[in-house]
Amino acid sequence: MRFAKEGIRIGIGSRSAERARDTARELNARVGGELIAGGENRDVISSADIIFLTVPFREAPAVLDTYRQTFRDGSILVDTTVPVTFEDGKARLIELPEGSGSEFLAGLLPQGVACVGAFKTIPAHMLADLGSPLSCDAFVFGNSKAAKERVMEMIGRIQDLRPVDAGDLSAARTLERMTLLAIGINRRYKIKSARYRIVGL
Amino acid sequence: MRFAKEGIRIGIGSRSAERARDTARELNARVGGELIAGGENRDVISSADIIFLTVPFREAPAVLDTYRQTFRDGSILVDTTVPVTFEDGKARLIELPEGSGSEFLAGLLPQGVACVGAFKTIPAHMLADLGSPLSCDAFVFGNSKAAKERVMEMIGRIQDLRPVDAGDLSAARTLERMTLLAIGINRRYKIKSARYRIVGL
Repeated sequence: MRFAKEGIRIGIGSRSAERARDTARELNARVGGELIAGGENRDVISSADIIFLTVPFREAPAVLDTYRQTFRDGSILVDTTVPVTFEDGKARLIELPEGSGSEFLAGLLPQGVACVGAFKTIPAHMLADLGSPLSCDAFVFGNSKAAKERVMEMIGRIQDLRPVDAGDLSAARTLERMTLLAIGINRRYKIKSARYRIVGL
Repeated sequence: MRFAKEGIRIGIGSRSAERARDTARELNARVGGELIAGGENRDVISSADIIFLTVPFREAPAVLDTYRQTFRDGSILVDTTVPVTFEDGKARLIELPEGSGSEFLAGLLPQGVACVGAFKTIPAHMLADLGSPLSCDAFVFGNSKAAKERVMEMIGRIQDLRPVDAGDLSAARTLERMTLLAIGINRRYKIKSARYRIVGL
């Protein structure tokens, strides 16, 4: 919605094209535009340059496994997932041998598809609440400098959200933990939208 | 200096009492007060409730080993170190089996001495530059809730610096990586004082 608000065409993918179209209609109404379209995952992924992976982390490997052949050569997967699990209401990081969720997921992509991480530290409900200013930074990192810069340029179009170059894909080790820290701060201070801003930049 | 500016008595420890006294004189002059005293490490540590460990990380184990019997029962060690090493001008985290520098150092303390982490993400030169507003958060975490709250109260007295409860000692795994991220942001953006502020709190 925030991308569509800035004039960027968006495709929403689902296993059911009908459901995706219903969601697109609903979101277009909220944005007040017509830039969001819906379609079956395979059609949406194969026609996109930049694909945002927004399923829960535990479902991400299966999704990538199903659609990996669908990605266009030269396209970019933007991983927004965080490998987190909840135990007794407390968030815990899922430790991965690759070091982070993004590094693990990047290994499941075909050659020729870049992996960029973004939005990991911004609460989804904040992004969805178009009336609330974000006033925070979006840390962007990835295994291709060109891909990272393209995603940063795209994110920079969103009002009141500053893209910050957080380095290569191993930055996910930090950013995914920062999500956990923000969840803990939310819990301890009984707030809902803790997020980060770099001071001095 | 920033503590002394807010009326808190500070002791600076050194292996050389004379050097500590010289430094104290110099810092008092910069603050415009007389609350900073200097002394030999053993005297300063044994008379303090809250001890800030501000040596480089690589020297920290030897320092704690030398003075661990000197700490008063019920005192608090505040670890400000970050296990970082520089290779070809690039900062890299020293991986520790305990998970973080703070967890490793806490294991070297005698029972009855709490370990709290703080100031890990604030550049030392910013703290020293009394004319510059900090305008950022100080993440505080530790293995004792009471000790953590005491350190937070102390830090809260510093103008324009907000203490944020970052949880238990394992938060060091996040905070130490955040220091690395800030160093990387400084390098990429050719700035010097990247630091963090939580938005939404």
